[in-house]
Amino acid sequence: MRLTAEQQASQRGETRPTRRATVPALEEMLYEPVPVLDHGFIRVVDYMGDDEAIVQAARVSYGRGTRRTSEDQGLINYLMRHRHTTPFEMCEIKYHVKLPIFVARQWIRHRTANVNEYSGRYSILDNEFYIPAPEHLAAQATTNRQGRGTILEGAAAQHVLDLLREDAERAYRGYVELLNEDAAGTPIDPSRPGLARELARMNLSLNFYTQWYWKTDLHNLMHFLSLRADPHAQYEIRAYAEAMLGTLARWVPMTYAAFLEYRMNAALISATALAVIRRMLAGETVTPEASGLSRREWRELMQVLGRSPAA
Amino acid sequence: MRLTAEQQASQRGETRPTRRATVPALEEMLYEPVPVLDHGFIRVVDYMGDDEAIVQAARVSYGRGTRRTSEDQGLINYLMRHRHTTPFEMCEIKYHVKLPIFVARQWIRHRTANVNEYSGRYSILDNEFYIPAPEHLAAQATTNRQGRGTILEGAAAQHVLDLLREDAERAYRGYVELLNEDAAGTPIDPSRPGLARELARMNLSLNFYTQWYWKTDLHNLMHFLSLRADPHAQYEIRAYAEAMLGTLARWVPMTYAAFLEYRMNAALISATALAVIRRMLAGETVTPEASGLSRREWRELMQVLGRSPAA
Amino acid sequence: MRLTAEQQASQRGETRPTRRATVPALEEMLYEPVPVLDHGFIRVVDYMGDDEAIVQAARVSYGRGTRRTSEDQGLINYLMRHRHTTPFEMCEIKYHVKLPIFVARQWIRHRTANVNEYSGRYSILDNEFYIPAPEHLAAQATTNRQGRGTILEGAAAQHVLDLLREDAERAYRGYVELLNEDAAGTPIDPSRPGLARELARMNLSLNFYTQWYWKTDLHNLMHFLSLRADPHAQYEIRAYAEAMLGTLARWVPMTYAAFLEYRMNAALISATALAVIRRMLAGETVTPEASGLSRREWRELMQVLGRSPAA
Amino acid sequence: MRLTAEQQASQRGETRPTRRATVPALEEMLYEPVPVLDHGFIRVVDYMGDDEAIVQAARVSYGRGTRRTSEDQGLINYLMRHRHTTPFEMCEIKYHVKLPIFVARQWIRHRTANVNEYSGRYSILDNEFYIPAPEHLAAQATTNRQGRGTILEGAAAQHVLDLLREDAERAYRGYVELLNEDAAGTPIDPSRPGLARELARMNLSLNFYTQWYWKTDLHNLMHFLSLRADPHAQYEIRAYAEAMLGTLARWVPMTYAAFLEYRMNAALISATALAVIRRMLAGETVTPEASGLSRREWRELMQVLGRSPAA
Repeated sequence: MRLTAEQQASQRGETRPTRRATVPALEEMLYEPVPVLDHGFIRVVDYMGDDEAIVQAARVSYGRGTRRTSEDQGLINYLMRHRHTTPFEMCEIKYHVKLPIFVARQWIRHRTANVNEYSGRYSILDNEFYIPAPEHLAAQATTNRQGRGTILEGAAAQHVLDLLREDAERAYRGYVELLNEDAAGTPIDPSRPGLARELARMNLSLNFYTQWYWKTDLHNLMHFLSLRADPHAQYEIRAYAEAMLGTLARWVPMTYAAFLEYRMNAALISATALAVIRRMLAGETVTPEASGLSRREWRELMQVLGRSPAA
Repeated sequence: MRLTAEQQASQRGETRPTRRATVPALEEMLYEPVPVLDHGFIRVVDYMGDDEAIVQAARVSYGRGTRRTSEDQGLINYLMRHRHTTPFEMCEIKYHVKLPIFVARQWIRHRTANVNEYSGRYSILDNEFYIPAPEHLAAQATTNRQGRGTILEGAAAQHVLDLLREDAERAYRGYVELLNEDAAGTPIDPSRPGLARELARMNLSLNFYTQWYWKTDLHNLMHFLSLRADPHAQYEIRAYAEAMLGTLARWVPMTYAAFLEYRMNAALISATALAVIRRMLAGETVTPEASGLSRREWRELMQVLGRSPAA
Repeated sequence: MRLTAEQQASQRGETRPTRRATVPALEEMLYEPVPVLDHGFIRVVDYMGDDEAIVQAARVSYGRGTRRTSEDQGLINYLMRHRHTTPFEMCEIKYHVKLPIFVARQWIRHRTANVNEYSGRYSILDNEFYIPAPEHLAAQATTNRQGRGTILEGAAAQHVLDLLREDAERAYRGYVELLNEDAAGTPIDPSRPGLARELARMNLSLNFYTQWYWKTDLHNLMHFLSLRADPHAQYEIRAYAEAMLGTLARWVPMTYAAFLEYRMNAALISATALAVIRRMLAGETVTPEASGLSRREWRELMQVLGRSPAA
Repeated sequence: MRLTAEQQASQRGETRPTRRATVPALEEMLYEPVPVLDHGFIRVVDYMGDDEAIVQAARVSYGRGTRRTSEDQGLINYLMRHRHTTPFEMCEIKYHVKLPIFVARQWIRHRTANVNEYSGRYSILDNEFYIPAPEHLAAQATTNRQGRGTILEGAAAQHVLDLLREDAERAYRGYVELLNEDAAGTPIDPSRPGLARELARMNLSLNFYTQWYWKTDLHNLMHFLSLRADPHAQYEIRAYAEAMLGTLARWVPMTYAAFLEYRMNAALISATALAVIRRMLAGETVTPEASGLSRREWRELMQVLGRSPAA
């Protein structure tokens, strides 16, 4: 499942004329795989629209009765701040992604996208699986059921890596044994039938790589990124989201700036937390107990405000 | 709400280089309005992908384990026949459409699209409304609550046309009176306030024109066209669907051919109707009464089979 | 288009046993129209799930490995704060709504809902149209293209009300004249044909009432309400949203509380605005000019913080 | 991941009064697991609406201007035949499903549903995996890349079963070793840290069971079933679809009948195939070569018509 000769041939690298909106900074990296994890990648294979297409769609609403008083960046900021999301839906992007199956399972939960995945019913999967780099080999967090704790080291780390690798290799050997055919589709032992591909694949583990084309509009892409580039997301999918943030910056730089300012680096402050801030600004010393917030919310608020949780 | 100078300027007519898939036949008509009804139009303002992008997405599923035995048209036919719809979702198109509000109300029911509509909250609508051409001025069907009957003629037709025109003109005069501002936004009678635009617009009737950007993927476009280019659709929205069929033919000619063969000109035959056909092919003379079909279904089946309803 | 005898009969008022989740507080108001505007209403006609269904769905993720340490309200707050939206999708509600067409046009833009609307292709619309109450008869805002300004009074108000009423009545007379049939479907002037219903309806103005069934899940309902119960929404759709907030409070009281705390009464603070708050908390006097915010953002931030815009 | 005590307690078996539509035949089986495959199940945990709710929604379109001439079954048939899908969207159903991960991966591709899945980030998965029953242990089809061929027997079958079982058991042992905690969450070897759950799960193979709540409307449920109860679907997901067909028959018997007649047992006949049928009915002997159909389409048409492929 690497880029095959056929896939590379289909990269359509030739330059052709178009009257559509084009983005030279994105054209430069078109079709180029950006490596993610140990064997994965993302690459942009097509796109539609640019920052100006968003502005243009927004101005449909204003029509000729509106003077162009605001700058494009100002208008895009306004749309982002006020959740006028439809103009961002006017842009579309298509990625080719290679990713471990357990990451694909999280990713696919974002429903507002179009997907074509490599099918193990029809084809044989490659012997490629994800093994975490040592610096991402984390113990279970003790304070948080969902998170990672300290990084494993030394013999404990090596034990984990060995076990993961051995089990994946054994799973793949089992898979080939079940299929009874090699990667080229030639029977290995012609004296016995191979198991149907759609059944044999079930022997593979969730760290094996799959790949897909994934197409979405800019609004839904940003929603995906705001959730998956977030520190609470599992590291492995976050690695993909971060690579995609780089493509966003090239594609629609104004939207990207607004996205950082009003989404990624913004904070949603609850009604009670707003009241706490108002009291603090009025000079009051607010204690966690008198704040009306839960301990967890208090801690999160103090973090957002750049203050020590103690007060 | 005609194409304004600004909108025309934004047509981005200049040719630029791209490494994306391009479709010269569609590029030719890019940005060009195709007239529909008396004041409406559709025009393609952007697109992503082509027939080959569909084939390429379908082949992700087959991977390298599959030899390229079938022609592209054959593969596209196969996908269409077997309802493998996801590869068609890999293409996207964006239209700019000007249409009467009552048509917009039918159109918007197709939810899987992105829309930016001209807003009467912000801007003043033009004095443009739809008046049917005489050949579409139909009486209510007597046999079918939903349909049109015979065409009105002579004085009856003239009466209808006069009434529609007078009421629309009066509605617009009322609108301007409520707004108390001209198209340029200048107060007409500075001594009194104008009603808020978001309120004044409610005085306009449903035949006034609005406009929007409408973006969808190819699969959902075909679903829209199969319903709205159908003879059961109201003529006015069908006129738009037919204009869009022309853009489909230029954009993805292989898909268009498959769409005609397996959707538009195909027929869904019920279980009971299939049994009737089998009996007829076996030489039996099947009567409507012995067919197990309702009278309406019998009539529709005979029509599909090119036979007289009598037997 | 009032509740017809048949519709009232279909209210299914009889009590039947069920093993599903039930919400007595919502059952009480089931089928009862809540009046909105001058002729409109909302009424709940069915629902699925309750607060506990959300908790239960959330706990699927935790399975047996998790102890039930948190209270239900705490869990629901957590889900709302951290945008874990899928458990809220496990509840569904269905409304019957009667509303002016221009409100329906805004409402329908929320795509993630199921809708069945009264059809003017098949049926004759009633002579019912919306006329704003005097206290909502606002002039166009001068500072904000989208908004309303001062309330019209005296002769100016009367002039607007008269004009709206006369034009709507004339539009309906034209509609009946075109149809040439009365509300019972009897021809008025049997000597001439009536215009097809699907055409005649275009003579009606946007303040005429339509009605529909509208069904959505709780997550999307809250998204709808957060946009449409917002002060920036047009008053007329806000009136519907506010009536629906009342049904939310009865249906899922814990979710409603969390919705107020973390959505409706919360604020999204941009990265730059967060920095301003931090500086203020550190004792610095921040001026609008040195804030890095636009004047509009500064004003909005001061409002959120309950301070005068001057500083 | 069996039904835990807590889950069973939450079955809400008590009977309560409601004024909503109820379906006694479905109430009877509410919460009861219907076994599927070796360890899986489906069970209905909630529903909204019934056949009458569909009829009622359809009649909104007809309003009072329409006499109730047709029977309910006739109206439902009409809606199904003419693809008036929105009334079917007025019903909703929620299932609790336990299924192998590779089945979940196919299933989740249906995007128009709400899903809450058991999370391996938070919780420990059970040692339960799918092993095909001997009669479903099929060889790869030689004529069809996607399908299954003959059933494996004897030693070949036993070899496959042994290998699948051994590899799954080994995968689970590795999983527990990585976690270093037992099902109750107690550390096994307290002297070393366990790997984070979100990482350890990647060692499990695709035949391990997961579970989810899955909620969808009736229209989308039928679309799902028409694809997944189809003979071309992989057996394992078809087994779930068939169990769900049984719930459909209980829930909305009229819709179920129409679904069989106009969907499941109907056939979509292409334009060219229709022409072939017309010629045959006119007495012509049509050969495959002169049919204009591909060999595959010819074969499929002959099958639909109940004739031998030879002619």
